[in-house]
Formats: sequence, structure tokens, C-alpha cells
Amino acid sequence: MKIEERLVTERNRRLLLRRRPVGLPVPEDFDLVEEAIPKPGDGAILVRNHLCSLDPGIRGWLEDAPSYIPPIALNDAIRAITVGSIIMSRHPDFQTGNWVVGMNAIEDYSIATPDGFLRVIDPESVSSLSLYLSVLGGLGVTAYFGVMDVCRPRPGETMLINGAAGAVGSLVGQIAKIKGCRTIGIAGGPAKCKRLIERYGFDAAIDHRGKSSSELSAALAAVAPDGVDMVFENVGGMLLDTALMHVKLHARVALCGLISEYNSTTGPIGARNLWQLIVKRATVQGFFVGDFSHRSAEAHVALAAWLKEGLLVIDEHIEEGIENAVPAFLRLFSGTHDGKLILRIAA
Amino acid sequence: MKIEERLVTERNRRLLLRRRPVGLPVPEDFDLVEEAIPKPGDGAILVRNHLCSLDPGIRGWLEDAPSYIPPIALNDAIRAITVGSIIMSRHPDFQTGNWVVGMNAIEDYSIATPDGFLRVIDPESVSSLSLYLSVLGGLGVTAYFGVMDVCRPRPGETMLINGAAGAVGSLVGQIAKIKGCRTIGIAGGPAKCKRLIERYGFDAAIDHRGKSSSELSAALAAVAPDGVDMVFENVGGMLLDTALMHVKLHARVALCGLISEYNSTTGPIGARNLWQLIVKRATVQGFFVGDFSHRSAEAHVALAAWLKEGLLVIDEHIEEGIENAVPAFLRLFSGTHDGKLILRIAA
Repeated sequence: MKIEERLVTERNRRLLLRRRPVGLPVPEDFDLVEEAIPKPGDGAILVRNHLCSLDPGIRGWLEDAPSYIPPIALNDAIRAITVGSIIMSRHPDFQTGNWVVGMNAIEDYSIATPDGFLRVIDPESVSSLSLYLSVLGGLGVTAYFGVMDVCRPRPGETMLINGAAGAVGSLVGQIAKIKGCRTIGIAGGPAKCKRLIERYGFDAAIDHRGKSSSELSAALAAVAPDGVDMVFENVGGMLLDTALMHVKLHARVALCGLISEYNSTTGPIGARNLWQLIVKRATVQGFFVGDFSHRSAEAHVALAAWLKEGLLVIDEHIEEGIENAVPAFLRLFSGTHDGKLILRIAA
Repeated sequence: MKIEERLVTERNRRLLLRRRPVGLPVPEDFDLVEEAIPKPGDGAILVRNHLCSLDPGIRGWLEDAPSYIPPIALNDAIRAITVGSIIMSRHPDFQTGNWVVGMNAIEDYSIATPDGFLRVIDPESVSSLSLYLSVLGGLGVTAYFGVMDVCRPRPGETMLINGAAGAVGSLVGQIAKIKGCRTIGIAGGPAKCKRLIERYGFDAAIDHRGKSSSELSAALAAVAPDGVDMVFENVGGMLLDTALMHVKLHARVALCGLISEYNSTTGPIGARNLWQLIVKRATVQGFFVGDFSHRSAEAHVALAAWLKEGLLVIDEHIEEGIENAVPAFLRLFSGTHDGKLILRIAA
């Protein structure tokens, strides 16, 4: 079938935001619609999306609040990073048949324009295209610069990772280990803690489930009696507050995400133990992968090399079919997945 | 009267910690006692305290909790920085008659040993000895490095100062101004706001009294519609949370103090709006004057020069008599003083 025909006979399934979620998103907040496949204007390309990255950050874009990128408008498609192939190009730098990764949406077809983030990738150079959504994508850049630039590890130092079994956390722990650090991971449930030690090489793992703040604090003191030099924070809430009580002098806290409060209906939670930052002369630094996009090649080169050397274990959890997008997305908050959460839209 | 006689006939009045305060300290938490004047051992000196610095930090040392220095023990004298003269010396670097500033206590006489903080000062070089407890003391070092090293101002940037009319805040605002910044001060009450503009040269002043968080936010948006590049935080609580909603991209928040929560009986307060650090890729850095003691000369030289050039207005509020130490100390929390709070123990 010629491309022109295909654009007429096929439909574009798109997951739209119908209303802004209150607390945990529910299916009624979304709507899967079928629309005509759009045609790219001058300077744009038409991408057939194959894989789509389901990130905690998407939850933030569903809010009508200023963030590091604008909120998703009501009745607009849910924004997400995808890997896809170019079906039609009206841009000289992008050829039909090229594979690209970029900020598109949870939909079969996206119109994309170069924005500093869209890039052509080489499917032949990797064992799986999905790696471009994990270690060789924004996730890898986040983990790499979060460790190297925000935490600034020195060999022999100790890093605590909250949300350690997650896609970012497990990679962060492995990078810190490569850099000569001792790693302590906090995760929910014994199975995840087992993964931390056995698959990702953490030195210690703590299960936060069922633990009070003082119980978690005691568990942390047992594995890090002298405290921790760095905290890589993905979770927030009680886990962050407990971590703050264990930071060493001049500790660095990399604030990557606060997933425990993204679905809060009572407003943000934050941290009560900020006074510890004065006592320990410590720093909390928020960061965002987009600030490192001009240096992403540095991360990709290092990560690809470590991958090749067998120093990194990358897990992916791939859900099938755009019709399963909402329950797949909600796994981010129930934690019922292991590794980078990806939705396959087309084989 | 010879010194040996004096040590026998005079008594040493000392303010002791009798119990740890719950919430705002009350007179019953303290006890003013008279004891014999101690004699210095080998390597120590005996100091007649004249002026004593009443700092918010003292409140923290009254708690039985780890801090940047150990808590004050029950039945021990209340630790404080003093200016005094050496009555007797058993240390070769310190001569009888020398004036010193050091970490001593609220008492007539202190035994001191060199600890990296104790230093000999020259009373002839200043208009008032009290300056060694304000601009030429720890306060000046705090303000100087808090601005220069933690906030790192660039000309044209905007600094928000919470607790701007306080001893540290008013100096911070003036240093930021010298460095070419626009300064916004938040303080409690119209009289203090008037001082900010008229005495300390702030560009804008906001009275937080009687304002809800959203009213304070609106007032801040009115004077800084594009947000602020730096926050110098002395207060915490709602003021810090509101400030976090107005930080610009890559803002620096210098966490100097959290006086609004030092007397909290419901535990620490912290900040709910930490998520803004991710959105704005901002940094919160706790700091403490002691970390800069090896560089304090740098601050003193700069501050003394600015003082000489008439670029700094330094206000002091001096309370008279050790018997008034407790109500004088409590002024820190009621805000019923203007400038650096000092207790005169001897004329």
C-alpha cells in the first residue's frame, strides 16, 4: 500500500486528556479516539510511533500548573517520548524510513518538528529499539547527569537511592557503583530488594513497606552508621524526610522526582526536615534531563560503553497495545512493574 | 584591687539551662546563679565578658538533638559569643589586658581555650566593641559568605530576603545591593518595612503580617513579576514556601535559618513546595558560619572597607544586664528589636 493510500484508509488512535485527574488518575480522565492521520506541514515529519515511554513526569503534565514544560491541554493527546519511523518527511534533515526518538504523544502517528530533542537513531546498533527509551534515552541521561553533575560522587562515598528498583534508580545505583561508591537502595517489597542486591549490585537494600519513619531510620542507621554522602531522590515524602536525618556533612541530595506526592489530593508534601540541611550544610538540587540535552551525547557514549562491557543491567517492562495505555501508565504508581515501563503501540 | 583578690571577692553570675524548653522558652527554663570565679588551667585564659551576642542559633542548642555543635548540657551555662578582656592568661598567645571575641557563655567570667574561633581584637580600630558581635563578627561572616558563596549574585539579579529587617537580613540586603542586585525584603510590620527601604536601601519591602500565603504571593508577584534569582532564608515556614513558588530557573536558595520553627512544639515544618526545585532546577543549600572560619578574614576585610566607605548601616539593639538575659533573648522570637541583639554584661 502506498503511503498516500495508507494515510487515507488507516486511522490514528490517540489517547486524549478529557479531564484533569484528582489524585490517582482513573480511566474516565482519558479517552481513546480515532482520528484522521494528519499530514505534516513544511519543516515537519510524520512519525509512526512504535514504542512509547511511560514516565512519572507525565503525571505532572496532567495538572493545570506551571512546570518545566507546559501542561497538556484538555482534549489534547497525552505527551510522551516515543520511538518511531518516519512515514513522510517535509524536513531536509529527516528522511522517510529513518527511525527517530522524540517528544511526541501516546498515539499511532505524530507530527514532529525538530526541537533540539528529536533525533535520528540507528536501529542496527542496538539489540532492541526500546533501549532508546531507557539507557540510551532520556532515562540514561537523567541517571548519568544526576549522578555525575548533581551528586558528584567520590570513590568510597555512600549513595542512598530512594526508589532504587525503578528504572532511574536501578541505573543510578549501577553508575554510582561504577564510580566506586557504596550503594544503599530503598524499595517497596522483598522481591524488589532482592533485585537490588542480586541484579543491580547494590551493597544494601531496605524494604520501606510497613515500616514507620523510625523503623526505616533504624534500618538505615544499621547499614550506614556514619550516614550517607549523597541521596538520589525519586520518591519524596517520608522516605526523603528520613534520608535527610542521615546525611553526612556537606551531603548532596539530587532531587529527581517526588512520585509519592504526584497523586496527592491535599497539596504538595515536601520535606519537614529541611533544618538538617543547615546542621549538615547540605544541598538539595532539583534537576531535569532537558537541562543536559546539549550534553546528552556525553551520557550516551559512556552508557553505551558500559552496556557493551556488561557493566549495566537494564530491565524493561513492555506493555502491549495503545488500548492498554491507561492501566499501563498507572503501574508507575502501584509499582507493579520491574524496570523501565514502555508501551508498544506497533510491532 | 589585685586580680587575685578580685577572683576571691567577686562572684561569677551565670545563666544556666535548668530544663529544655518546650516551644517558646520561659524564665523557668533558666536559672541565674552565682558561683566562684574559676581559675584557668594550663593553656587556658580567664575572660571578663562585657558584651554577649544573642543569636537565634542558641535556641537550637537548647534542644537535646544533634546539631552543628553539641547541645548545651542541663545545668550548664548558656553558650554564646562574647567580647571580653583577658583577666588572667595561661596561654603564651594571649596576654592579660587583650580583648578577645570567642564562643563563651552568658556569664560574667568564662574560661576559654584557643579553638580556632577565639581571636584577639583591637578595640582602638572600631567605634564600638559591639561591632565585633555584628558586622565584624560571626554575623558579618554569615551574611558575607551566605551572599557571595551560597547565593553567588550576578549584577542585575534579584534577591529575596526573608527576615530582611533582622541583623543578618539587613546586612545581606546591603551586600547584595553593593554587588549590583535588586533586593526585596520581607519583614513583619510596617515599621520594619519602612526601615528596609529608608535605612537599608532595599528596592522593595513586603509586610508579611496578616497576609495569607496567596496574599503574600500576590504581593511578591507585584514587585518581582519575573521571579527571583536568589532567596536568602532566615525564617522558613509559609514565607519559604511562598518564596519557592517565585524562584526563577536555576535559582539559589541560601538556607541560613528557620526561626519560625525553632519554637515549634509539633516538630519541624520544612517546606511543602520542594517540587518547585525540580520545576525550576533550583538549589537549596544549608550553610553555617563555622564552615567559613578559615576564610573569615576575607569577609572582615571587605566588610570593614564597606563600613569605612559608609556603604553599610549597622543597627544594634543592646539590652543591659545579665539579669535581663532571658527577656532579652526572647526578643529574637517576638521581633521587638531592631538590629543585632546584644546583651551588655559589664560596662
